[in-house]
Amino acid sequence: MLTLLRHLTSLGHYGGRRSVATVISGNQTSKMLRERLKKEVDHLRTAKVVPGLLVLQVGNREDSNLYISSKLKAAAEVGIEASHVRLPNTVTQEELLRTIASVNEDPSVHGLIVQLPLDCIHRVDVEKITDAVSPLKDVDGLSCVNAGKLSRGELNNCFLPCTPNGCMELIRQTGVSVAGKHAVVIGRSKIVGAPMHDLLLWNHATVTTCHSKTSDIPRQVATADILVVGAGRAEMVRGDWLKEGCVVIDCGINYITDKSKPSGKRVVGDVHYASAYQRAGFITPVPGGVGPMTVAMLMQNTVLSARRVLADVSGASL
Amino acid sequence: MLTLLRHLTSLGHYGGRRSVATVISGNQTSKMLRERLKKEVDHLRTAKVVPGLLVLQVGNREDSNLYISSKLKAAAEVGIEASHVRLPNTVTQEELLRTIASVNEDPSVHGLIVQLPLDCIHRVDVEKITDAVSPLKDVDGLSCVNAGKLSRGELNNCFLPCTPNGCMELIRQTGVSVAGKHAVVIGRSKIVGAPMHDLLLWNHATVTTCHSKTSDIPRQVATADILVVGAGRAEMVRGDWLKEGCVVIDCGINYITDKSKPSGKRVVGDVHYASAYQRAGFITPVPGGVGPMTVAMLMQNTVLSARRVLADVSGASL
Repeated sequence: MLTLLRHLTSLGHYGGRRSVATVISGNQTSKMLRERLKKEVDHLRTAKVVPGLLVLQVGNREDSNLYISSKLKAAAEVGIEASHVRLPNTVTQEELLRTIASVNEDPSVHGLIVQLPLDCIHRVDVEKITDAVSPLKDVDGLSCVNAGKLSRGELNNCFLPCTPNGCMELIRQTGVSVAGKHAVVIGRSKIVGAPMHDLLLWNHATVTTCHSKTSDIPRQVATADILVVGAGRAEMVRGDWLKEGCVVIDCGINYITDKSKPSGKRVVGDVHYASAYQRAGFITPVPGGVGPMTVAMLMQNTVLSARRVLADVSGASL
Repeated sequence: MLTLLRHLTSLGHYGGRRSVATVISGNQTSKMLRERLKKEVDHLRTAKVVPGLLVLQVGNREDSNLYISSKLKAAAEVGIEASHVRLPNTVTQEELLRTIASVNEDPSVHGLIVQLPLDCIHRVDVEKITDAVSPLKDVDGLSCVNAGKLSRGELNNCFLPCTPNGCMELIRQTGVSVAGKHAVVIGRSKIVGAPMHDLLLWNHATVTTCHSKTSDIPRQVATADILVVGAGRAEMVRGDWLKEGCVVIDCGINYITDKSKPSGKRVVGDVHYASAYQRAGFITPVPGGVGPMTVAMLMQNTVLSARRVLADVSGASL
């Protein structure tokens, strides 16, 4: 009830005084999504299809270990069979490509992701590795075939990259329609900014992409009905840049010094939350916003991949 | 000298009165490009590499015949061996795919284009056809592999689609630097708008894409330092929408009624030329602007493809 009231009041002025933003919870949204996926997996299992995910890691980066463990945990929760293959940091590009080729051939694996960045003592062409994953198992949506289909608007014929797809899901939660709105994306990375542009565009927003070479980011941000930030710069977007009532999706994960914390640091997004919260209509928190959605969308893509295999098999047996 | 003077005066006010735009000639720029390519082809031929282009047509559309004949003419002019294969409109998708596969294997062909739209009595999946062309011979730059690489900014590792690449060349002719500028693209087609966005973005412009669902195109256009229009609507962009001194690239080819002409019609762009000419700093005419550049860039891609083959062969023989 409180949420509803805050939602309503956030849509405009209330009693002569503008309310604060409605917080879009990634924790809550991803939980609902995982519950839905669990039911789908149960259904697939009755048809003798067990969705399989393989996470391929090179080396032993601590941050990668943490990300992988949260993926394995989410997979277990929804009933996906996940396995984790760790190759030593002495692996060569050729060996890595051979491993990927053999997983591509393995019918029990519906989703294959290569955890980035690679922790490898040899020189490895990361594009080549990403593109070696079969487009039919590329549940990270990072191969150039998937990127090309997305950029051409074939949204139903590819795997959507997990972070931008999670952002779209959070935008949908607000009830704000995307078509015809002006969306501004800050950042043009392969994982966040570039595919986010494509997704917003093919959901019929007018989209502006800003980046490190943009001279007037505050002026661009001021025109945004929907703002997605994936810049990798702690608290760079200030509340007073925002159009009042806009939707703010913050993909940033930055650690800043905070002596009040036992660890001496805390995590913040790319948006200055306290000031943006006063001005936006909807905002994602950090942590608990985009982060948990990324993992949930990876699970969704894996289930989708298994469902496609089932559809092909059913089709063939007709 | 006159051109230089007009160029200088177009940069601002002159004698208290603003001058008109400098016209960017696609005829002239493409002619220079073809001359340069002819020298490159001569050089390749001395190394026993003859650049080969194959144009695959289905059926017998009159407009396709015209486009193909201008491609064959340009190829002959620069010394590319071009062949034209016309399949009957009764061809099936399977037969078409087999033809493409065999051309993919033919080492004498460095560039393969399938002339669109297909004129075929059977149902054919156009994406499937476009994507069947080997990415190494896809000199139209329309396969999803090439689109994906472009959207990720790998400009030197793909074939750039001909029309947007021609637009970039025309923008370069103005001397206006793209980095940090605000570019607005109207249209999101696979052939023009979508790849144009990518090219401008990876040349470091801040880019806004507008399309049929954009509610306020005039307001967006007013912010553009560089405007590229590929909307397919005759004279939709009016001069008074423009930021003074901006660069206007018009990809439109539209026929409108003109009783003063013997044919009863004339060709116009997507920009209302007479009013835009009064306000822009630089403008492309229609015809004689983007059109001839598209064909020239196809020749450039074919030569590039042949050069890559030569580099591979030389590399292998080292």
